[in-house]
Amino acid sequence: MPDSEFALIRDYFMGWGEGPAVRLGIGDDAAALSVPEGHVLQISTDTAVEGVHFLPTLAPAEVAYRSLMAAASDLAAMGASPLACLLSLTLPEVESNWLPAFSRGLYEATAHTELSLVGGDTTRGPLSVTVTVLGSTPATQFMTRAGAQPGDRLCVSGQLGDAAAGLAISAKELTVDDARNADLLVTRYERPTARLILGQALRECATACIDISDGLLADAGHVAAASGVAIHIDSTLLPLSEALCASVALPQAQDWALAGGDDYELLFTLPGKVPLPEGCTEIGRVHAGGGISCDRTPECIGYDHFAR
Amino acid sequence: MPDSEFALIRDYFMGWGEGPAVRLGIGDDAAALSVPEGHVLQISTDTAVEGVHFLPTLAPAEVAYRSLMAAASDLAAMGASPLACLLSLTLPEVESNWLPAFSRGLYEATAHTELSLVGGDTTRGPLSVTVTVLGSTPATQFMTRAGAQPGDRLCVSGQLGDAAAGLAISAKELTVDDARNADLLVTRYERPTARLILGQALRECATACIDISDGLLADAGHVAAASGVAIHIDSTLLPLSEALCASVALPQAQDWALAGGDDYELLFTLPGKVPLPEGCTEIGRVHAGGGISCDRTPECIGYDHFAR
Repeated sequence: MPDSEFALIRDYFMGWGEGPAVRLGIGDDAAALSVPEGHVLQISTDTAVEGVHFLPTLAPAEVAYRSLMAAASDLAAMGASPLACLLSLTLPEVESNWLPAFSRGLYEATAHTELSLVGGDTTRGPLSVTVTVLGSTPATQFMTRAGAQPGDRLCVSGQLGDAAAGLAISAKELTVDDARNADLLVTRYERPTARLILGQALRECATACIDISDGLLADAGHVAAASGVAIHIDSTLLPLSEALCASVALPQAQDWALAGGDDYELLFTLPGKVPLPEGCTEIGRVHAGGGISCDRTPECIGYDHFAR
Repeated sequence: MPDSEFALIRDYFMGWGEGPAVRLGIGDDAAALSVPEGHVLQISTDTAVEGVHFLPTLAPAEVAYRSLMAAASDLAAMGASPLACLLSLTLPEVESNWLPAFSRGLYEATAHTELSLVGGDTTRGPLSVTVTVLGSTPATQFMTRAGAQPGDRLCVSGQLGDAAAGLAISAKELTVDDARNADLLVTRYERPTARLILGQALRECATACIDISDGLLADAGHVAAASGVAIHIDSTLLPLSEALCASVALPQAQDWALAGGDDYELLFTLPGKVPLPEGCTEIGRVHAGGGISCDRTPECIGYDHFAR
C-alpha cells in the first residue's frame, strides 16, 4: 500500500503532541484536548501562501517558524494561554531536504510557544501553510479589539518597523552594510515572537488588544472601528530599534513602523492609572469619535491580500 | 484604505457564528468558545486543493459543501457533538459569482452539521480550502481507531462506492444513461453527509471508529494497525446502492466500495451483543493478528496524495 503521505506525517510530526491538555494527539481522525475548568477556548487560523505572504527564497525552517508564530500572535492578542496547534501543509512535491528543515523550524516554534502539535493534514499542491492555534483564558478575561475607551493610552510592545526592513533586505530592496544589523532585522522578519506572556499579563488590565500583522495604522484602525473610538498616534513616540535607525533614515524608519506589517507586537489600550508593562511604549491616545489620526502619513498603509 | 479582503469576509461570512457555545465569533484576532462542562474538545483540520482533491469543474457551492462535510466527518468518527468551524480560503482572484456561490454551499453545510462558523482567513493564491472543525464529547467517551477487539463485528453505515461512481461520472470516465441514477451518484460525491448523529450514538457502544475517506480497505487498515488486530472483510456483504448496481457491473461496484474514497460513511467495530444501528451493515470481523484480508482485491487500494 502506498502510504508515503502517512509516513511523512508520522516521521516528522508525531510524538510532539505531549502537553497537559492533550488527551489524544496526532494519528486519529481528530485530536482531543482538555480545556482548563472555568476557561473558554480561543481559536484562530492563519494561512501563508508562497509568493503572497513570504518570498520563495525564504528557507523552509523560517516558513514554518513564521507561520506558527503569526498564528500564535493572535492568541497573544486575546490574552490566551497556549494549548495546542494544528498544521495543514500543502507541498508541491516531496523534496528530501525540505520537510526535515521545515519540521525543525516548526518544532522550535512549538517549543517556544508551548503549543503542542496535535493534528494536521498534508496535501499535494502549491506551497501553503495553514496553522490553527488553540488557547484558553478565564471565562471573562479574554481581550478583544472592542473595549478601548476615550482617555485610554495607546501602547505597543517591543519595537516597530524591523520586520519591514528585514523583508526589504531579503527582497534585495535594501542594502545594509553592517552585517550584524542586517542579520538582526532579517531575523525579526523571519523569526518573529508571539507575545504570549505579555498578552496573559494584559488580560487583567488592557481594555482592547490586537497584534500588529497588517501594520500599526491598519491594526489601530481595526481597534478604533471595533471600539467606536478615535485613535491618535504620535509618530515621534514610535519605538524604533538601534539596528533600524542605523540602517535607514528616520522618515523611512517611521514609515515602516507605521505601515509595515509582520512585527507581531501587541497594540493595546490601557486605562489611565494602569502602569505600563516593561518593554512597552505609549504611542498615542484614545479619544471620542472615530478613525485614526497621525502627524505623519506614510506612503502605503496596511496590507490587503486582494488589493496588491 | 484598501480593505477588500476584510469586506469579503464581512459580507459573506459574518453573522453566521451564532450558537450556544460561541462567546465571540468572526471579526477579532481569535474566536472564543465555551466547551460543555465535563466534556473534552475534539479538533480536526482538512485541506482540499483544486486539481488534487476536487476537479476544477466542481461548482463553488459543492467545493464548500464537500470541504466542510469532509472535515465534519472526522468529528463524526470521534463521536463528537458539533461546536464550531473555521475556514481558510485561498482564492486565485476575486470573481464576482464565485464567492456568493461558495458561501451558499458553506452556509448549507454549516446549517446541516450545526457547526457555527466562528473564524477564518482569506488569502490570495491557488484555490484551496482548509476547514477546521471543533466538537466535544463527555471526557471518557470519544472513539478512536485503537479499540477494536478480536471477536468484534466490523460494520459500516450507509452504502459504499457511490462517491467513486459520482466522481467517475463528473470526470467523464463513466456514462450513466439513467439521469436520476447519474444525479444521485454525482450528488453522493458532491454533497456527502457527515454521520454526526450516528457517531454520537456509537460513542457509547463502538470499540473503534473511523470515517471512510481514503477507501474502505485503506481505512480498515488504519483501524487494524491502531488496534493491533486483523480485520477480514467479506465483499459479498458490502452495502451497494440500487443506483450503483444499476449503473455498473457488480465487480466494478464492489471495487469502488472497497477502494473508492470520499464516501464519508462510518466504519466501526461493535462487541458481540450490541445491536446494529439502523441503516448500518455488518461487513466483516475482527480477529487476533494484524492486517486486512478480503476475498477480493480491487485494482487500486486507497488514496495517497503523494503517490498519485
